[in-house]
Amino acid sequence: MHTTPADLVAALDIGGTKIAGALVDSGGRLLAAARRPTPAREDAATVMGAVAAVLEELLRSADWPRVRAVGIGSAGPVDASAGSVSPVNVPGWRDFPLVAEVARLVGGLPVTLVGDGVAMTAAEHWQGAARGRVNALCMVVSTGVGGGLVLDGRLHPGPTGNAGHIGHISVDLDGDPCPCGGRGCVERIASGPNIARRAVEGGWRPGPDGDAGAAAVAASARAGDAIALASFARAAQALAAGIAATATLVEIEVAVIGGGVAGAGDLLFGPLRERLRDYATLSFASGVEVLPARLGSDAGLVGAAAAAAGELGIWGVATGS
Amino acid sequence: MHTTPADLVAALDIGGTKIAGALVDSGGRLLAAARRPTPAREDAATVMGAVAAVLEELLRSADWPRVRAVGIGSAGPVDASAGSVSPVNVPGWRDFPLVAEVARLVGGLPVTLVGDGVAMTAAEHWQGAARGRVNALCMVVSTGVGGGLVLDGRLHPGPTGNAGHIGHISVDLDGDPCPCGGRGCVERIASGPNIARRAVEGGWRPGPDGDAGAAAVAASARAGDAIALASFARAAQALAAGIAATATLVEIEVAVIGGGVAGAGDLLFGPLRERLRDYATLSFASGVEVLPARLGSDAGLVGAAAAAAGELGIWGVATGS
Repeated sequence: MHTTPADLVAALDIGGTKIAGALVDSGGRLLAAARRPTPAREDAATVMGAVAAVLEELLRSADWPRVRAVGIGSAGPVDASAGSVSPVNVPGWRDFPLVAEVARLVGGLPVTLVGDGVAMTAAEHWQGAARGRVNALCMVVSTGVGGGLVLDGRLHPGPTGNAGHIGHISVDLDGDPCPCGGRGCVERIASGPNIARRAVEGGWRPGPDGDAGAAAVAASARAGDAIALASFARAAQALAAGIAATATLVEIEVAVIGGGVAGAGDLLFGPLRERLRDYATLSFASGVEVLPARLGSDAGLVGAAAAAAGELGIWGVATGS
Repeated sequence: MHTTPADLVAALDIGGTKIAGALVDSGGRLLAAARRPTPAREDAATVMGAVAAVLEELLRSADWPRVRAVGIGSAGPVDASAGSVSPVNVPGWRDFPLVAEVARLVGGLPVTLVGDGVAMTAAEHWQGAARGRVNALCMVVSTGVGGGLVLDGRLHPGPTGNAGHIGHISVDLDGDPCPCGGRGCVERIASGPNIARRAVEGGWRPGPDGDAGAAAVAASARAGDAIALASFARAAQALAAGIAATATLVEIEVAVIGGGVAGAGDLLFGPLRERLRDYATLSFASGVEVLPARLGSDAGLVGAAAAAAGELGIWGVATGS
């Protein structure tokens, strides 16, 4: 494809609560943006209608004629090889042919689909904490735990666009059942809701405002509450085991962590770096660094654009290599 | 490099008990072979002397003039980027500059170094059960548990030649300490010596011949001994969790298992395939197949040759792509 720095990529970030869209330029800036709530309990056509509304807003932008491709990052699982998505929190979409539907609306421009963890990884590799890294794991620790991989200097989405799905590897083979059907998954131990659940089970009680989420547990931990500290330490241990497993399997040099739970800062990163020494023991894995993500809530859009640009060779920079 | 089908690769397979060498042709056949016991308790120069003796035997072969490169598969950890090895069971070699030493003996031919798990993977991908597969994990379950990865149709050794080291990922974050320094590693649960240890701890006793190894436990299990069966089932569970983690992280389509413990056949593969359904739950991971390895004791040599041929483009086939 002949491309110039003036080319744009249209990006879609599809989650369980919102559908966001933007036109992204070669510097990762958002030139036009649109968003709709996800009608997550509605039927397939209604959900697609919200996507179409976002796209139509972008299509009306004066910059649209410079758009060369569309990149989609979607809540998973996705199937990039089939062009379909089945987001856990959008039951109306099962094997929904999102790529074909979007391609129809944008006049046949090339459409690239990746999972949201892979999109966030593309963003951090292009513009954030994984920039210049040859082998990296990027992850989001939030309501769920997702991730993606950079291998040999390039985004590694895997054949279906789901590679790097660290939230659902088991680090506790006899552990608690996970909604995915597995046991002892990283997400079952380290996600925000599970940090809060474990604190409550241990006897922690929310303050007068009634906030019983992971952020409230973090505030208690900062004030020295032993139960709250222990719940974060357990999450850190599970993340350490998962990151160490990734380093041992594919030789990553850095793990970048974003998402709401990462906002707890040293409360998470301190014990995480300490426990990592317990699990990443082999010479080639023991040097793995842990860094906070740099991009904020736009990471999904920036990354969806980067994934499309990298696949199609737009801008000649994108996801490296 | 200009190459022809008549080119050969000299291969070395360096383990804790033996050092093997061979000249390998474009069909994976061994044209000349040599071997020495590894003087594993001796100093660095003595161990290198045994490697030199193997190489000198190969150098005297009438086929040597057709050799274009040398491939080395070594017990790990290795550091392919530095060209050095530090095999756990050969204490005299720590950061030993094996690539430079071998290159000197072979008149400056290119030398490729990979870990033994990566070499076995190259062999199974070239000639064995992973042939034609685009994304695969190959592993050896024996005294230890090692492995390697094929990603995007190519061997993926990682920057230091150790990628795919599944034996030392933790699947039991609070589990037994592993000699590597970690806890609950796959190897600590699934290796032959650990299958035997767990059986003995559970009350199993060897037969009149006194054989207390995993093969004897397998024989008891086949005769219906509940403790022996339980020890194999636990090994299968740990392997299932590790294979599922790999499928979830890098989207493999097949796991190929060789080594002495795999010789137990259905005793291992039966419960392993069953438990895999418990851990490989996500749509993109749940289809992962488990197959026995096809190559036998020559896999290390064939794979070392394949890794070198793949890196240098010899034969134009090698490890795929």
